[in-house]
Amino acid sequence: MPDFSNFACPVLLRDCPHVILGHGGGGSLSRDLIEGIFLAAFSNSLLDRLDDSTVLDLAADLGHGGRLAVSTDSYVVRPLFFPGGSIGDLAVNGTVNDLAMSGARPLVLTAGFILEEGLPIAELAAVVARMAVAARAAGVRIVAGDTKVVERGHGDGVYINTSGIGVVPDGVAVGREPVQPGDAVLCSGTIGDHGMAIMSVREGLSFEAAIESDSAPLHGLVAAMLAVCPEIRMLRDPTRGGVATILNEIATRTGAGIEIDEEAIPVNPPVAAACEILGLDPLQVANEGKLLAVVPADAAEQVLAAMRGHEHGKEAVTLGRVVAAHPRRVVMKTAIGGTRVIPMPIGEQLPRIC
Amino acid sequence: MPDFSNFACPVLLRDCPHVILGHGGGGSLSRDLIEGIFLAAFSNSLLDRLDDSTVLDLAADLGHGGRLAVSTDSYVVRPLFFPGGSIGDLAVNGTVNDLAMSGARPLVLTAGFILEEGLPIAELAAVVARMAVAARAAGVRIVAGDTKVVERGHGDGVYINTSGIGVVPDGVAVGREPVQPGDAVLCSGTIGDHGMAIMSVREGLSFEAAIESDSAPLHGLVAAMLAVCPEIRMLRDPTRGGVATILNEIATRTGAGIEIDEEAIPVNPPVAAACEILGLDPLQVANEGKLLAVVPADAAEQVLAAMRGHEHGKEAVTLGRVVAAHPRRVVMKTAIGGTRVIPMPIGEQLPRIC
Repeated sequence: MPDFSNFACPVLLRDCPHVILGHGGGGSLSRDLIEGIFLAAFSNSLLDRLDDSTVLDLAADLGHGGRLAVSTDSYVVRPLFFPGGSIGDLAVNGTVNDLAMSGARPLVLTAGFILEEGLPIAELAAVVARMAVAARAAGVRIVAGDTKVVERGHGDGVYINTSGIGVVPDGVAVGREPVQPGDAVLCSGTIGDHGMAIMSVREGLSFEAAIESDSAPLHGLVAAMLAVCPEIRMLRDPTRGGVATILNEIATRTGAGIEIDEEAIPVNPPVAAACEILGLDPLQVANEGKLLAVVPADAAEQVLAAMRGHEHGKEAVTLGRVVAAHPRRVVMKTAIGGTRVIPMPIGEQLPRIC
Repeated sequence: MPDFSNFACPVLLRDCPHVILGHGGGGSLSRDLIEGIFLAAFSNSLLDRLDDSTVLDLAADLGHGGRLAVSTDSYVVRPLFFPGGSIGDLAVNGTVNDLAMSGARPLVLTAGFILEEGLPIAELAAVVARMAVAARAAGVRIVAGDTKVVERGHGDGVYINTSGIGVVPDGVAVGREPVQPGDAVLCSGTIGDHGMAIMSVREGLSFEAAIESDSAPLHGLVAAMLAVCPEIRMLRDPTRGGVATILNEIATRTGAGIEIDEEAIPVNPPVAAACEILGLDPLQVANEGKLLAVVPADAAEQVLAAMRGHEHGKEAVTLGRVVAAHPRRVVMKTAIGGTRVIPMPIGEQLPRIC
């Protein structure tokens, strides 16, 4: 948990160190909140205009006239701070990653906050500081924002929506060619870290080794992969519902069969141990800094090497392959030589994971 | 209030007619909700791809290579349905209007939903249907979405974030020239309708004549204004905090003085009566289908005529003017010949108005 004393209430807000309904009213209290918290953290030439909407010049701001990627995600993770991250960096990295899955270079984000009356301003400042750090790390600017305040008991501290725009570089052809038998299914690293980090702190579980969220921006990794193979068939980040959900979605949407190898699945030992104790399947646990890629067989080794050369893909593996057998189904070859169908999870193991 | 029986639970969701936490889990329950509710209402070629982010081709989808406007807004209005509108059409029109205030033609929206466990699916379907109708009316497509579910008591039915992208036509020069003394301040119609509609239904007040929200998309009106005067100095929609807040923001940001005429302020008689009974100032009450414009003096008559020729500007008036006296202050010339400073409202009269 962060020490909120590091986030002294800004001078502008000293008389009012908790969020009150008036902070959402559009008047001078709202202005104090915007200037004291959001502009202080996110300031840039586009946001500072404080216009109702922000105009991007395609040539000057985007440096590009081709294709844009657009995405939106709301973040309701509980608690707001957890080992390895917070709702703030999750709200940046999550949407950056959704853009990256189109092969895009993330460019700008918008940020919409729904605050609960009574939230300490210092806690909001801490969340916003994490967002600002994550945005700088990912190389994106937050160019538009909005704040609403709801009555105590009608929210949960902070909910954040981020929407993002990215530029898809010329030549990038993610998804142009359909998934086909023989394609390799790659995974960028260990799975289940984020979900188990949240579960451990929320349920008060302590394991021998610390489990940290893997929250990270993945567009750099994607760019490295696309540099060696612009025709990646599919890129997805396995967040809610985990790898099992994404593989089933790929199988359902493309009509392909997918076969994965149990022995290839990378799981950090403390995550594996925690999953075993709790009876959870790491394949169904959420990730926030991992991706799955379907790539043509003849490019698989090159892409894997490019992933392993990147800080967010050091432990990348070939998880399995696309097969002509069992269309629309995901099947795992088990360590002892059997096979098992990996079903689409129905609901979720742990609500409000992101 | 709408009759939710018109919104039968989609077949996919029959077994589960209320929102449950699993609808936010990313698994097959999430998929049922997305297909049964959101795709059914918003279907279009970009959204139907169900990718993590949606790629816009600047030439094909935008028909343009120039400037983009970007905006975001969260909607937490209570109740979800009110005379003249609902959170659904507000979420479309509000963000469309923010884009329009940059002179942009709104193009695409994203929609992020935070649902409370226990929300009847039929009620969600009704909200979403209103959004779809409003989006069609405004000529925008909803191209990306996200759904999170929070536990009962941690939300309030439905919160919606919409973020929007618009294209600023070549030649549009909103804000290029600074506000200066002599400029006219125009208002597109009666003020206070939205805020008083919400207040009347929320507080169980009934007035002789019905008061309806003015929720409407304003980009068509803006286009008509820009056709006769591309150099409009400033466009703002007076939502939370009302006209008083926006005029003060303009005065503060530009350093200009603003003078308005009390007799010119257009207020519907039932709204005026309700404000008087409740001791409210219509200048501080929210609007959702009105705009304020600062225009060069020599173009004012032409712009006013263009506004009056548009369905959303029939009752447009000259509210006042920019003056060299009292910089950064808004002053009203009262009906009886005096003057009164219009201060920046501090908080809000009525929380969760939008």
